[in-house]
Amino acid sequence: MKIIIVGATGAIGKHITAELQKGHEVIKVGSKSGDLRADITDPSSIERLFEQTGKFDALISATGSAHFGPLATMKDVDFRIGINGKLMGQINLVLIGQHYINPKGSFTLTSGILSDDPIVLGANLSAVNGAINGFVTSAAVELENGVRINVVSPGVFEETPQYFPYMPGHIPVSAAKVTQAYIKSVLGFGTGQIIKVY
Amino acid sequence: MKIIIVGATGAIGKHITAELQKGHEVIKVGSKSGDLRADITDPSSIERLFEQTGKFDALISATGSAHFGPLATMKDVDFRIGINGKLMGQINLVLIGQHYINPKGSFTLTSGILSDDPIVLGANLSAVNGAINGFVTSAAVELENGVRINVVSPGVFEETPQYFPYMPGHIPVSAAKVTQAYIKSVLGFGTGQIIKVY
Repeated sequence: MKIIIVGATGAIGKHITAELQKGHEVIKVGSKSGDLRADITDPSSIERLFEQTGKFDALISATGSAHFGPLATMKDVDFRIGINGKLMGQINLVLIGQHYINPKGSFTLTSGILSDDPIVLGANLSAVNGAINGFVTSAAVELENGVRINVVSPGVFEETPQYFPYMPGHIPVSAAKVTQAYIKSVLGFGTGQIIKVY
Repeated sequence: MKIIIVGATGAIGKHITAELQKGHEVIKVGSKSGDLRADITDPSSIERLFEQTGKFDALISATGSAHFGPLATMKDVDFRIGINGKLMGQINLVLIGQHYINPKGSFTLTSGILSDDPIVLGANLSAVNGAINGFVTSAAVELENGVRINVVSPGVFEETPQYFPYMPGHIPVSAAKVTQAYIKSVLGFGTGQIIKVY
């Protein structure tokens, strides 16, 4: 299987990449590293990415920026960081990628626990994660030729302890467990699933 | 209570307005009609709105555009209609309005059933509705001075039969029932609630 991993060198992406490289052709994509570079906030950069990869069987996105800060001082421009990054970046990977994916292929996006379980400073991520979950639920009923789409919604990741102080009482999730959620989406059978890892 | 209703002359807004006008000072806001005009896609227009209203006790938003069309031909520019309209429009009403609302006031936004129960052509609305639900869940833990925030998520509205053919099997919800959801949010006690009317 030919699998594109966007965010392949990220905290979670590197584990997914290591696992899938064992039996598949993996194209690692990053903003600053990887086999190919792409800026997912720019649709023309995504278009160029797929022109380079050509047809593929699966795309995993484990990337996307958002704003983390107090609601009391949050402005439109702050909120747009997550809108243009983690949200529209991932959605454009699907809107454009649907024209390059092989029949029975799959898209796997990444949201996160904050849509359901909020924390102080997390309003932008809560909104963006909720949007990605809603989009995947809906895109699944329209994608053609047996193409599937799912989203992995992880809790706080054990290898990013810098977030622990902002998430009291949250139980960190292991690399092994998060990786399996992506494996399930790509090699499994579901579509329109929000795969919660928490 | 001084209540601002954005989208006051809309299909749902006119019922909320009629009910709340019985016992409260209601300021009707619309893009083309109402006591005051505002373009919620423009943060500076929202800022001018609150400069005109001054301090208030409750804001209800029952408005916001989105794109309705096939995923197969959907582009970034289409998706941005809902992002800039129903999503950022409502979020900016809160981000800016939080500096004008009285202690113990409330915000009530509007999402919709499609975040959970998708239909063909509805991907933009599914994403936007999910984002609004996520935002409200999170904003509730940060708003200060006892200010509350909820979102009403209605099913297809009985007075908009033009949508019925796109939503097979959906049971239309009555004006009376939808209106009560907004009343519960404004005059009730909850915060961070997704009030589902379906």
